[in-house]
Amino acid sequence: MTEHEFLAALRTLPLHKGARGLKDDCGLIEIGDETLIFNHDSMAEGTHFRPEADLADVAWKLVAINLSDLASKGAEPIGVLFGHALGGNDRQFIEGLRQVLTAYDVPLLGGDTVATTGASTYSMTAIGRATCKPVPSRDAARIGHGVFVTGTIGRAMLGFEGDKEYLEAFNRPRPQIDAGKQLAPHVGAMMDVSDGLLLDIHRMARASELSISVESSAVPVAQPDRRGECMRWGDDYELLFTLPQGTQLPFPATMIGTVEPRGSAPLYLDGEAMADAEGLGYQHS
Amino acid sequence: MTEHEFLAALRTLPLHKGARGLKDDCGLIEIGDETLIFNHDSMAEGTHFRPEADLADVAWKLVAINLSDLASKGAEPIGVLFGHALGGNDRQFIEGLRQVLTAYDVPLLGGDTVATTGASTYSMTAIGRATCKPVPSRDAARIGHGVFVTGTIGRAMLGFEGDKEYLEAFNRPRPQIDAGKQLAPHVGAMMDVSDGLLLDIHRMARASELSISVESSAVPVAQPDRRGECMRWGDDYELLFTLPQGTQLPFPATMIGTVEPRGSAPLYLDGEAMADAEGLGYQHS
Repeated sequence: MTEHEFLAALRTLPLHKGARGLKDDCGLIEIGDETLIFNHDSMAEGTHFRPEADLADVAWKLVAINLSDLASKGAEPIGVLFGHALGGNDRQFIEGLRQVLTAYDVPLLGGDTVATTGASTYSMTAIGRATCKPVPSRDAARIGHGVFVTGTIGRAMLGFEGDKEYLEAFNRPRPQIDAGKQLAPHVGAMMDVSDGLLLDIHRMARASELSISVESSAVPVAQPDRRGECMRWGDDYELLFTLPQGTQLPFPATMIGTVEPRGSAPLYLDGEAMADAEGLGYQHS
Repeated sequence: MTEHEFLAALRTLPLHKGARGLKDDCGLIEIGDETLIFNHDSMAEGTHFRPEADLADVAWKLVAINLSDLASKGAEPIGVLFGHALGGNDRQFIEGLRQVLTAYDVPLLGGDTVATTGASTYSMTAIGRATCKPVPSRDAARIGHGVFVTGTIGRAMLGFEGDKEYLEAFNRPRPQIDAGKQLAPHVGAMMDVSDGLLLDIHRMARASELSISVESSAVPVAQPDRRGECMRWGDDYELLFTLPQGTQLPFPATMIGTVEPRGSAPLYLDGEAMADAEGLGYQHS
């Protein structure tokens, strides 16, 4: 099954209402007045990192990509649980964990270790507490909203390619926890940029059942002569969000487009209809 | 690093207080008057299941082993998140998930899928709500407590070996959720039997800093002429617990030993000191 078919099949299972139909990045559980937010993301050798990768970087990134999803919900992280495949450079992994948990002041809540054969997969569940309600989702874009992105897009791509200036951007992405908390009370839709900016915009538009028009020249990219690649590569872990007109920007970000009535495609790039998600994000090894 | 070394290194990381020093099976988060309970366990191809296994069984067991840890805390399951390695018989996996989630009335809260190369690892976080406080732990055995186990031990071993009567016991273990809830308000220590009864008793005694004396003839085993193997093989997912003297048994179980002052070994088996954990549980493929 493709990931798309698998996800469609999962939606036929008994779902928690906080799973939001598996159409969002995180699950929610309401406990009294609090809303807890859960994210589960894994990293697989050969798919998300190279066999020769420093496992300290892998551990950092594993935590970072999970916290990035919490950030897109405006959540305050509470703790993480992880599944560890023993047998790589486990000391490096531990040191990377120590660095990222310390940097983001997030404690370890538990986990398990398994002996595996062949390529390793590391998994994680991150748990956070909502700082505002409603918790932001990717389906709350509304006609007339401006579309914004934090930071600069394409940095991870350049780091992956070996550009020393951007190695950190690829190996040690920085989840936008503070930005998420500041933005959450004001945004329409919000999500993190993980699989490619254009693909993520396409998904936001589809979830919101609207169209989003993007002006590519407005997108802040790390290498302007490779603007198209920067907008498609992903792994940047910036925040993509919409704001109602007239809202003062609560956190530095760049306006790159507008939300419009539903047209023939979820995404219009420089006026061109992009109906198909194919080619908007990269599957990178 | 060995699993033991890895765990020791993990304990030097920033830990949530609900991680209980990583000495217990689950992590706890207190939210208002509620205590949420978290467990993360993975299953790896070649280690926890055979490459030719029916993935419906694997999905069932993945949920069951996670719920079993919640059961040992007397928890009511709330939901599960999982990490799925695409590329096996994904339809079988979905159907197994459907069966186990329906059987235990536990909804899916989220998860992720990854493309992997080689052997597959499936991971899960199960989330539950404590039904009584304090939440049972493995370190609360006290001198004079009786030591009990639910069910019959060694059934999974026989199932693994192909005994048709016990195939289900190995492939589709039944987490003792109801037993756990009924026992939790009364027990001293409690944990599930996952890695071998004797090994788990050894761990309970060590955590409680006491000795436990076991009468092997009292242990309910599936094949009495292989009593030693039954007590060491594991994968049974029954509950092991201690009860203060004079407590009426709140759920059917068998008394197999007593908690005694700390001696030269954590475990005395038929009077023989078993200082070392080696040989008390099986690593099975």
